[in-house]
Amino acid sequence: MYDYNGLNEECGVFGIWDHSEAAQLTYMGLHSLQHRGQEGAGIVCSNGDEFVNERGLGLLTDAINKVKMNRLQGYNYAIGHVRYATSGNKGIENIQPFLYHFYDMSVSVCHNGNLINAQSLRQDLERQGAIFHSSSDTEVIMHLIRRSKKETFEEALKESLKIIKGGFTFAILTKDALYGAVDPNAIRPLVVGQMSTGAYIIASETCAIDVLGAKFVRDIHAGEYVVINDDGIRVESYTDQTTTAISAMEYIYFARPDSTIAGKNVHAVRKASGKRLAKESPVDTADMVIGVPNSSLSAASGYAEEIKLPYEMGLVKNQYVARTFIQPTQELREQGVRTKLSPVKDIVQGKNIVLVDDSIVRGTTSKRIVRMLKEAGAMEVHVRIASPEFMFPSFYGIDVSTTAELISAHKTPEEISEHIGADSVAYLSVEGLIESIGLDVDAPYKGLCVESFTGDYPAGLYDYETDYKASLSPKQKAYLNEHKQYFDSEGNYNV
Amino acid sequence: MYDYNGLNEECGVFGIWDHSEAAQLTYMGLHSLQHRGQEGAGIVCSNGDEFVNERGLGLLTDAINKVKMNRLQGYNYAIGHVRYATSGNKGIENIQPFLYHFYDMSVSVCHNGNLINAQSLRQDLERQGAIFHSSSDTEVIMHLIRRSKKETFEEALKESLKIIKGGFTFAILTKDALYGAVDPNAIRPLVVGQMSTGAYIIASETCAIDVLGAKFVRDIHAGEYVVINDDGIRVESYTDQTTTAISAMEYIYFARPDSTIAGKNVHAVRKASGKRLAKESPVDTADMVIGVPNSSLSAASGYAEEIKLPYEMGLVKNQYVARTFIQPTQELREQGVRTKLSPVKDIVQGKNIVLVDDSIVRGTTSKRIVRMLKEAGAMEVHVRIASPEFMFPSFYGIDVSTTAELISAHKTPEEISEHIGADSVAYLSVEGLIESIGLDVDAPYKGLCVESFTGDYPAGLYDYETDYKASLSPKQKAYLNEHKQYFDSEGNYNV
Amino acid sequence: MYDYNGLNEECGVFGIWDHSEAAQLTYMGLHSLQHRGQEGAGIVCSNGDEFVNERGLGLLTDAINKVKMNRLQGYNYAIGHVRYATSGNKGIENIQPFLYHFYDMSVSVCHNGNLINAQSLRQDLERQGAIFHSSSDTEVIMHLIRRSKKETFEEALKESLKIIKGGFTFAILTKDALYGAVDPNAIRPLVVGQMSTGAYIIASETCAIDVLGAKFVRDIHAGEYVVINDDGIRVESYTDQTTTAISAMEYIYFARPDSTIAGKNVHAVRKASGKRLAKESPVDTADMVIGVPNSSLSAASGYAEEIKLPYEMGLVKNQYVARTFIQPTQELREQGVRTKLSPVKDIVQGKNIVLVDDSIVRGTTSKRIVRMLKEAGAMEVHVRIASPEFMFPSFYGIDVSTTAELISAHKTPEEISEHIGADSVAYLSVEGLIESIGLDVDAPYKGLCVESFTGDYPAGLYDYETDYKASLSPKQKAYLNEHKQYFDSEGNYNV
Amino acid sequence: MYDYNGLNEECGVFGIWDHSEAAQLTYMGLHSLQHRGQEGAGIVCSNGDEFVNERGLGLLTDAINKVKMNRLQGYNYAIGHVRYATSGNKGIENIQPFLYHFYDMSVSVCHNGNLINAQSLRQDLERQGAIFHSSSDTEVIMHLIRRSKKETFEEALKESLKIIKGGFTFAILTKDALYGAVDPNAIRPLVVGQMSTGAYIIASETCAIDVLGAKFVRDIHAGEYVVINDDGIRVESYTDQTTTAISAMEYIYFARPDSTIAGKNVHAVRKASGKRLAKESPVDTADMVIGVPNSSLSAASGYAEEIKLPYEMGLVKNQYVARTFIQPTQELREQGVRTKLSPVKDIVQGKNIVLVDDSIVRGTTSKRIVRMLKEAGAMEVHVRIASPEFMFPSFYGIDVSTTAELISAHKTPEEISEHIGADSVAYLSVEGLIESIGLDVDAPYKGLCVESFTGDYPAGLYDYETDYKASLSPKQKAYLNEHKQYFDSEGNYNV
Repeated sequence: MYDYNGLNEECGVFGIWDHSEAAQLTYMGLHSLQHRGQEGAGIVCSNGDEFVNERGLGLLTDAINKVKMNRLQGYNYAIGHVRYATSGNKGIENIQPFLYHFYDMSVSVCHNGNLINAQSLRQDLERQGAIFHSSSDTEVIMHLIRRSKKETFEEALKESLKIIKGGFTFAILTKDALYGAVDPNAIRPLVVGQMSTGAYIIASETCAIDVLGAKFVRDIHAGEYVVINDDGIRVESYTDQTTTAISAMEYIYFARPDSTIAGKNVHAVRKASGKRLAKESPVDTADMVIGVPNSSLSAASGYAEEIKLPYEMGLVKNQYVARTFIQPTQELREQGVRTKLSPVKDIVQGKNIVLVDDSIVRGTTSKRIVRMLKEAGAMEVHVRIASPEFMFPSFYGIDVSTTAELISAHKTPEEISEHIGADSVAYLSVEGLIESIGLDVDAPYKGLCVESFTGDYPAGLYDYETDYKASLSPKQKAYLNEHKQYFDSEGNYNV
Repeated sequence: MYDYNGLNEECGVFGIWDHSEAAQLTYMGLHSLQHRGQEGAGIVCSNGDEFVNERGLGLLTDAINKVKMNRLQGYNYAIGHVRYATSGNKGIENIQPFLYHFYDMSVSVCHNGNLINAQSLRQDLERQGAIFHSSSDTEVIMHLIRRSKKETFEEALKESLKIIKGGFTFAILTKDALYGAVDPNAIRPLVVGQMSTGAYIIASETCAIDVLGAKFVRDIHAGEYVVINDDGIRVESYTDQTTTAISAMEYIYFARPDSTIAGKNVHAVRKASGKRLAKESPVDTADMVIGVPNSSLSAASGYAEEIKLPYEMGLVKNQYVARTFIQPTQELREQGVRTKLSPVKDIVQGKNIVLVDDSIVRGTTSKRIVRMLKEAGAMEVHVRIASPEFMFPSFYGIDVSTTAELISAHKTPEEISEHIGADSVAYLSVEGLIESIGLDVDAPYKGLCVESFTGDYPAGLYDYETDYKASLSPKQKAYLNEHKQYFDSEGNYNV
Repeated sequence: MYDYNGLNEECGVFGIWDHSEAAQLTYMGLHSLQHRGQEGAGIVCSNGDEFVNERGLGLLTDAINKVKMNRLQGYNYAIGHVRYATSGNKGIENIQPFLYHFYDMSVSVCHNGNLINAQSLRQDLERQGAIFHSSSDTEVIMHLIRRSKKETFEEALKESLKIIKGGFTFAILTKDALYGAVDPNAIRPLVVGQMSTGAYIIASETCAIDVLGAKFVRDIHAGEYVVINDDGIRVESYTDQTTTAISAMEYIYFARPDSTIAGKNVHAVRKASGKRLAKESPVDTADMVIGVPNSSLSAASGYAEEIKLPYEMGLVKNQYVARTFIQPTQELREQGVRTKLSPVKDIVQGKNIVLVDDSIVRGTTSKRIVRMLKEAGAMEVHVRIASPEFMFPSFYGIDVSTTAELISAHKTPEEISEHIGADSVAYLSVEGLIESIGLDVDAPYKGLCVESFTGDYPAGLYDYETDYKASLSPKQKAYLNEHKQYFDSEGNYNV
Repeated sequence: MYDYNGLNEECGVFGIWDHSEAAQLTYMGLHSLQHRGQEGAGIVCSNGDEFVNERGLGLLTDAINKVKMNRLQGYNYAIGHVRYATSGNKGIENIQPFLYHFYDMSVSVCHNGNLINAQSLRQDLERQGAIFHSSSDTEVIMHLIRRSKKETFEEALKESLKIIKGGFTFAILTKDALYGAVDPNAIRPLVVGQMSTGAYIIASETCAIDVLGAKFVRDIHAGEYVVINDDGIRVESYTDQTTTAISAMEYIYFARPDSTIAGKNVHAVRKASGKRLAKESPVDTADMVIGVPNSSLSAASGYAEEIKLPYEMGLVKNQYVARTFIQPTQELREQGVRTKLSPVKDIVQGKNIVLVDDSIVRGTTSKRIVRMLKEAGAMEVHVRIASPEFMFPSFYGIDVSTTAELISAHKTPEEISEHIGADSVAYLSVEGLIESIGLDVDAPYKGLCVESFTGDYPAGLYDYETDYKASLSPKQKAYLNEHKQYFDSEGNYNV
């Protein structure tokens, strides 16, 4: 999967407490999280009294230019956000962090993931007179906090976190503290680091800790929140109804290869999954292994090493592609014009190829790549996917929430192979994925959230339940009948 | 070499004749050549009568936005340019293609490379009353053409091409034809392709032909120019004093891995040079091979394959780095903050590493990377460079024109190893480089320009001669004394 | 008063129902109201289903460019706003109209004037969990409407209008209707017009009706609101506790000379006040009359006609001044550098001048003008102000809300004359003002709001009462003791 | 004439030598000259060594923002330009001042007016190999200077000034001096002023001297140039073939009312011409006099004073009109929508009006205004023009260069009255104009250039001669036959 037509993570969060260059470090932290969202970015800074806010559309460098950065100098506390916007709510008013000024305090909040009961909560709140100013889930928690009868902000936050459902992390800044919170399944990741100056940071991925030269302190676990203030750091639980289910997607596609999630390095996991895939589904006739840049290169090199074939650069990705607005017209496309990914003719010509990719979502990208390789002279193209069949929608922060768009919800690997024009298609097994990641948590799927491959939703379905059930395909139904489900539609773990 | 602190190619050119989507295709062709210049871009279109011009600073997508593209619709002929600007002349007035309107015709021209007698020509012309409007070499040829007494534009162009010296290619558009021209040594590359519609294109690299789905027609050779008009294509020579000397730098760093120069694929050359390097300078104690992303990954995988070690992703490059304006302050840098390149701690920790890079220019980048890896826990770091010692400045279109900045002009590999904190440093031999590229031209260095490694300048020195000779270091002098030089300071081949 | 250092009206509103060019007409209507606010502008359009919103900072032409206007095409209903922002809340989030999307409806609202109980209402609402997203008063009414238990939007609106206090007009757009509302004293103006197509419009001033070639239908009176929908137009009262008190400031400075308020043309009123001023305070020794451009030119020509002196252009205002960011430094100012207003040396040299201005607020501008004229060679400068002494702050939508800044709160005309370096200063009497305007309403001050001259606040003081009373100067206290006050601090009319 | 559909002056120039705030003062000087050109602006600064350049399209505040101004700080010498661009050459490359870097010196140059032999000079120069980079006349003089064989820059400048023909002023900056030059008829004005610091300035109008608090030093007369350097100021003649012929247009429309040209204040001239017009063409039945804002207000008040009628504001100009991009569609215009100028219904209704305007060029604007007034209820509208019939094109820097567009080239006042729907139309006589201005120079027309009213061209016709003569209308021919012409087509004064 080489572009944004496939899966999209919704957002990265970052926070820092008590560093004289808080804005600069937040900018750099967000820059390392840019792969988690390219459609908007924002930073809120505070010195305890005043809060300032800069944000914009597009990549971080477009959203927050030098002039805006200058306005953020001189503050010690900050949170920041990079955003992937699902269509329909791309306006500037949805760019986070949100900043709220009340008569008694100011609060800034940002969020990664998806709240699956947000729509019902929002309608309840509006019926009580609440006014929402964005279409973002993130506002819901602020309304819950402000309507709470609890005496302290922290108590109100705890109460509110119990009400919301789904996969999420929050970074929240008040004049008194920086808060981070993780959903009761730890579906979405959040980590704590510490600068050599003593300043604590929180971030969606460890790569943000590393680029700042900070040391890793700990993961925030399922159902926990962290409070960072002038007294130091304190981690608490807001619920004991937790079942760890870390998103396997983070390992497979979203996270940067240099990040480590729950103790497992992402590149190493990908390389291991490539090796496992080579064992499960070798190709005897192949001359070389190539990967789809950039996210599948680790898995491809693992596959090549295991099967002892040359690992070649048979596809080149234009490194400037992220920002181009121009797309070939249909007519030009038929003339063979493409801008993102190019096959290397001199490498692939006359060769039998194993093409390693991290996933097939709709099948359109795979089809295009296979055709491209064959047009460039490849003899055979055997597609090997370093994850299981993507059969079920995800509601926990990935932009694939309907069954209709998932080719694996409807077709077998053989049918897909024919559809995309490959010589064969094979997937990693669910078991193979779980073992390649190698968590050892006492929970279903060894602590992973693999809902997209199994239809087993650890945080339940809530507002999505009706539509989801109505849209199940024959293949999905058959799979669900044949496989044990650990979780019910409210996310209860039925042992 | 992973960033722009090292070597910089000066520009990429593109041209197309007679396609209804000329501007769109030029944009896409330039997009594939973006690696050759990120500081400005321009497109000039024509329909034979009218000429229109759009250009701007920065990456192509910033320089030419949708509104500007719309103004370029409806024209059949176009040339375009991406630009690397040496400091001091970054203004918009230097962005090419230049467009000239005369009482009798209009001409647009753009250029890749460096004219080494431009300053003396310019001064002569100004003494005769000529007015220059940019600081670019490119204007010189226009003045020569306009002052020529020849009867036709083509004759005037031929005459002018004989007067200029250096490494260069030109793309020139008049209402009657698209011209491309290459210097008498073919130092800088220019290729011709053809769309399925029949339309001809010219471009600095074959990757621009490939992304457009066009077929490769031919290279333009030393001292040749091509005329494309409604009668088709015609290649002529403007001089018979030619000695082929294709820039080895194109293979080593500049060109995209999917491009093919003089019949040799760039990725394949790099992989071969990595293999050759492993044979010439193996490391016995190593656990893995890593490459500096992105330009050294091919060589690193070749090295790993040859020496049968795992090829790992021990360094991650932020794919969004190209556009960020923000740099860590000195204080932050001391706290370990970095934004471009990150070591993957979990991969390199406790390991002995072979670090493959494509070059060492000033040594500062290498030093930073070695320190980064050691701070991340690497035990040993053995640096292997997939090209020879970069000992001499280049005047033919690379932004390294003084001896002082070249660490290899002054230090031995052992001294460099100490300087950058590595456990060892070794370079590919000149012989190894020439054989890895594998041209077989009957000319010195088998048809390559390897002046940066040998001090042997196939196009001579001209305006640079005095300063160059005065600045020679003891190490450079010693090298020159010990090695045969094929070319004199006017570029004559002294057999 | 020639610039923005003096008085500033807060905003102009516009609305149109059922015209195929609703956005275009709103733009033009706002353009004619630009003098009421230059710091931001916005337009919301609807077709009954969808609502779209464009807005920005600065003048209308900067705030809403062609691209934004194009996005507003194809909608039949619209409201728009030009804004004067008091310092501290100049952010884009405060630009109106606000647009709210609820689960059951969408509403857009914009506002002219000032709610004097907004702070206390806002704090009450926040205590009940309400979240505000701007610092604007305008949000308060939306919260009141949404929290109302009334069954229809119109009923909820009526209820909410009764709760808020001050001088205000609202334009509100829902999918069903366009609403306009006026405060219980009609302090701020709102008029209804009708296009030749039958479409109704509402606007802050009649000039917006005139530029659209529409015909004037009626004023909205104190305590009324208008509902415009597909059934036509209906005007209702939301309260019977009304006392007409139209802001005299609208006549004196804010409104365009071609506007007509409550049947009285603004230019004619100003010319009449200039004539009255000439009768009340003639200058025997004068050679000519000049006015401060642009707002005082009508009064000056009236003064000249009455006293039979030439009316000359002794001061020239740079017509491009509105947008310049550059101000002379103190050093340059001492060298005599000025950019906004220039004396015409050849006109004023050696002459005795009557300088007619519409007001003196802080005295700084008058001082500068008098000095300018004297430096240009004027012998005597007699300042005549075509309104009474500006002695009391205003809280109903004018940006002069503290006593400290009002020079007339502290100094007599003689002291002011000395302060500004004039040869004499005289003001129009309150009686003279009331008669020049010539309303004949059965209410105090014949239906005018003259609080700035009398300290008599027809809408009361509310949140401002404590600070206002604490800050009264000796001169203010003396005036209040000597003059009858018709209204108490809650705005009740005590006959 | 109230908008830009009529006459347009081409440009204003400014220069300053040796002031620590040179850029700031140039900006302010240009701001006061903004009425002379709104389509582009530029400033070039120097400290004797380095030259810096900032420029842009649109009004000065758009063309040169704060960031650009900051880059101009710290230089002591500057020239600047505001530009009116005739259609077809509106690109940024035509924005002046131009800045040229030669091997031996740098020169910056800007220009007001029009060179009537520019096309033939340019073609000659191009035949000799010259390359032009803009479509502006201004480049011609630079080529002439650089090709001159004279030894000094000043000598080369003198020689070049003799070769060019037309109405022009130049401001030129080198590292050694600031130069100003005026055409041999002084058609276009240029004045010298001096700051209290001693620094000299040059400018197109005295208003730029006045806003800077500088004192007027002198006019630059026909055929003179001024050299300002560290030795002070020196005025020389480059030719003795001079005949003073100051453009009457400057007094009638272009110049600011506070400017003084050749000792005559512009407002005073306009008021005098209004008085003279009242004597020449009174209206017996009128109730009031109104002027077309802004340029005709002085003349209207003069007319009113002379004829003892009230001077009223019957038309209001939107002061924000300069920048709006939006125009009513034809359909909206038919509904009566207008944005620039509004009639004041309450003033004009039922009245007989004298409408004073400064000119009728094409008649379209006058027609629109008369209709507007009648639609607003005016009974009679008598148009009185404070200048003679505009019968002949101008080639000396006014954007009216073809006969076809001039209504007075074809129609009598009576026909025009009918065409525009007025009750009568009358013009000031040529004699009346000359006496109202009141120069007393021993030259034809008392030293005025009145070519647009008489067809007598003091600087000749040159490149325009053929087209001009071919296009003469019967009315023009008849006029020329009946009136003595002082100048031949090469501008020789045939006494």
